[in-house]
Amino acid sequence: MSIEPGDVALLVMGGKKFLVTVKGGGTFHTHKGYIRYDDIIGKPWGTVAKTNMGSEVLVFKPTTADIMEKLGRRTQIIYPKDAGFIIIKSGILPGSRVLEAGSGSGSLTIALSRAVGPRGTVYSYEKEERFLKVARRNVNRFGLGNVIFHRGDVRHRVDERDVDAAFLDIPDPWNALKAVHEAMRPGAVLTIFVPSYEQIRRTCMTMKKSGFSDPEIHEILIRQIEYSEERTRPATRMVGHTGFVIFTRKILTDY
Amino acid sequence: MSIEPGDVALLVMGGKKFLVTVKGGGTFHTHKGYIRYDDIIGKPWGTVAKTNMGSEVLVFKPTTADIMEKLGRRTQIIYPKDAGFIIIKSGILPGSRVLEAGSGSGSLTIALSRAVGPRGTVYSYEKEERFLKVARRNVNRFGLGNVIFHRGDVRHRVDERDVDAAFLDIPDPWNALKAVHEAMRPGAVLTIFVPSYEQIRRTCMTMKKSGFSDPEIHEILIRQIEYSEERTRPATRMVGHTGFVIFTRKILTDY
Amino acid sequence: MSIEPGDVALLVMGGKKFLVTVKGGGTFHTHKGYIRYDDIIGKPWGTVAKTNMGSEVLVFKPTTADIMEKLGRRTQIIYPKDAGFIIIKSGILPGSRVLEAGSGSGSLTIALSRAVGPRGTVYSYEKEERFLKVARRNVNRFGLGNVIFHRGDVRHRVDERDVDAAFLDIPDPWNALKAVHEAMRPGAVLTIFVPSYEQIRRTCMTMKKSGFSDPEIHEILIRQIEYSEERTRPATRMVGHTGFVIFTRKILTDY
Amino acid sequence: MSIEPGDVALLVMGGKKFLVTVKGGGTFHTHKGYIRYDDIIGKPWGTVAKTNMGSEVLVFKPTTADIMEKLGRRTQIIYPKDAGFIIIKSGILPGSRVLEAGSGSGSLTIALSRAVGPRGTVYSYEKEERFLKVARRNVNRFGLGNVIFHRGDVRHRVDERDVDAAFLDIPDPWNALKAVHEAMRPGAVLTIFVPSYEQIRRTCMTMKKSGFSDPEIHEILIRQIEYSEERTRPATRMVGHTGFVIFTRKILTDY
Repeated sequence: MSIEPGDVALLVMGGKKFLVTVKGGGTFHTHKGYIRYDDIIGKPWGTVAKTNMGSEVLVFKPTTADIMEKLGRRTQIIYPKDAGFIIIKSGILPGSRVLEAGSGSGSLTIALSRAVGPRGTVYSYEKEERFLKVARRNVNRFGLGNVIFHRGDVRHRVDERDVDAAFLDIPDPWNALKAVHEAMRPGAVLTIFVPSYEQIRRTCMTMKKSGFSDPEIHEILIRQIEYSEERTRPATRMVGHTGFVIFTRKILTDY
Repeated sequence: MSIEPGDVALLVMGGKKFLVTVKGGGTFHTHKGYIRYDDIIGKPWGTVAKTNMGSEVLVFKPTTADIMEKLGRRTQIIYPKDAGFIIIKSGILPGSRVLEAGSGSGSLTIALSRAVGPRGTVYSYEKEERFLKVARRNVNRFGLGNVIFHRGDVRHRVDERDVDAAFLDIPDPWNALKAVHEAMRPGAVLTIFVPSYEQIRRTCMTMKKSGFSDPEIHEILIRQIEYSEERTRPATRMVGHTGFVIFTRKILTDY
Repeated sequence: MSIEPGDVALLVMGGKKFLVTVKGGGTFHTHKGYIRYDDIIGKPWGTVAKTNMGSEVLVFKPTTADIMEKLGRRTQIIYPKDAGFIIIKSGILPGSRVLEAGSGSGSLTIALSRAVGPRGTVYSYEKEERFLKVARRNVNRFGLGNVIFHRGDVRHRVDERDVDAAFLDIPDPWNALKAVHEAMRPGAVLTIFVPSYEQIRRTCMTMKKSGFSDPEIHEILIRQIEYSEERTRPATRMVGHTGFVIFTRKILTDY
Repeated sequence: MSIEPGDVALLVMGGKKFLVTVKGGGTFHTHKGYIRYDDIIGKPWGTVAKTNMGSEVLVFKPTTADIMEKLGRRTQIIYPKDAGFIIIKSGILPGSRVLEAGSGSGSLTIALSRAVGPRGTVYSYEKEERFLKVARRNVNRFGLGNVIFHRGDVRHRVDERDVDAAFLDIPDPWNALKAVHEAMRPGAVLTIFVPSYEQIRRTCMTMKKSGFSDPEIHEILIRQIEYSEERTRPATRMVGHTGFVIFTRKILTDY
């Protein structure tokens, strides 16, 4: 696999990371000189390029976490730590059909799209046109053809049926439980992401009456460890909280 | 999708979970009575079965996290919180070819196998025959046909070339860096899981000289939140530490 | 300072700790033999005694944390990690007059008593006779003469006035805010310990209307690090949650 | 107790805190107007003052934690969460004689000084004249008469004998174990604060050979909880690591 025009590349330079789209004839400027994309096109991923001033730039194919970290800068809610856990807890596999609302920046949309692969589908609902535009642009940038965006309010209506997993990241998930329940196949996992305790409470209270199993609630924390030749230690700064992750499953009571 | 003989099912009963293989004519006994598998065969996942004493048993298709939680009971090292993060950080996608050592109980093997799907492959190395047997049995139980087990020592030799990602969970990963480096495609992510600081240190010191990029080191913590009608609070007990996750990438210095 | 009859001693033996009262003629039995108290009486603290079978027993004067750890075994709510933070955040000094409710096992009572010293006083309220008895016995065991116990309900009445700090560890602290406010000197810190989010909410909502400043809410977590010659790592098990600590101060609005 | 000239006061204004020395004739300026100190002198602590523009300013007597938080701004290493735990774990009581090195900004010096009270003493060693000056100024500002500063290197010599507790916050504590051991009374607790794992290791390895008991190592984490009328949640940002706290005791092996 070699670097081709149109590819999105992760450039790593002295601990800093940049997500760029490689274009023939283009250049990437850093504070230590620039690299010409033409010099890396055709080379394998993992190449160490050099700027005109001699600084090393590592060129990698971005992972899902790389994409989420860079896209999320401004509107990020779901971090890789949460996205990885969500995918592994919710039964999402290559080929799955997954429902998501809201699309936000498209960061989780991309993670879901990559996890289900070309034979799966992500249905992503978003009320706000401006977010939808951003999410769509981000998804397209990575050439992901398995995402279907809907401008719409998941609290009122979901078109799909029998989805294999559903994910809600909206302020009032309790109002969407009914419509989402209808869209899910029996036994499917619904994941809900909320930042506050009041939202946990209200969501879980409503859930009981809506055909879902008892919820499991988790919070994932991540600590970075700093390593140098002299010393190893947890980083001074850390993100203290992003949100709580609630998992439940659609049950078939009256079958 | 309905429940069929041979399927592995997750039974949930009053907060307890059981992973069982559904067999025609068989029964599952609990302290509140039993259910006959014949009564659930042919029904959809998500069904609420009842024991002969009238207690409810929820029948779900297990997710990757369900499988890891139940399999790992005795030898668990990698938890779902870590596995999800590893997959999303290491560029593993449907179709990827992934190297793993050691196989352990096969818990992470299953997680990787499910993430890469039928078009991908997991190459799993294990030195100890007794672990290999357990891992193989566990993988077979879930009908995963994309895992190739090797009885062998990854520190001395890896047969594959150009794998898309590699994962090491062995006590002395620094001794395997050379062989694993050869097996990886340039730019691929190597993930190393170690429980102690001394292992971080020794691994990272060796890494620099072995054609890998600067490592990123993380620790993932998970807190369970207890919810009842009366109150919401973090659980009293938590797992304080499983291990540290080191990520690095193969670089191509002399291309 | 030497070990005298009547002293409470901390015996440490192979990682295990015991809190014992030294009595002339008495013995302390372990699974590796016994020590005679007569053999350590008159010796300095820090002495390494030996059982009749030759095992080493270290004899220390217990610290406040040692006492709390051993007393709290059954009914512990406030841990040393919380007690230390509470004392340093609430303006408690040698000589302070401190109000506490409820007494519980007397574990925090002892910590407060030791922090304010012989020239200070702790007023400890407890509704339940059986707890009061335990608390009183524990406090007496350490010869602390500066604690005044009240059997009474702090929600209805507090006899003292102008206390320098107050501490509440009762299920419904919001019901005690009025009586405690009256008992505090202006500017004094009130600390409230609650395990659940619902209690935070209800307490803070009532606080605003009761002459207290905006609350600060914290949660203290403690990780133990295991060290051996081979490796250093966080302990596998940890206490995930004890409670939240709310700090506020009495304000004088209409002075 | 009323506010007097020369007192250090904590002013709280809309969530912001300021530590000021009250001076007759002086003023305190904020972005919402100023207050005249003459208007609060003679009033009780806990008073709500008003700026000339009508904004409320709460006037409190600072607690130990308030002082540490404000002093530590630039050079802070020891936080209140750590200081409280250290005091309660190390047997420090009113009247104790405590050894400390280095003085740093004097932040922990003040915490120790306040905990031991007027009948106790803190011996604070500092190699660097510039730090000593800062520490001395900070201690004097709070009128604490029980601190004796030494300009000196605790690794080479400690003048005191039989101190009740000792605290080390220097980069190479292993080099000070011998001198500090001589200065401590048998059974006394030595607390060592280090940020990195390498320092834990080297300290603990040396400790064994130096007449100290097996160490206990802890890390204290603190999460702030944000409360508003709408929602309660952990704060987004948190301090991920300050340091590890090692506790050990001087033992008398050859008594």
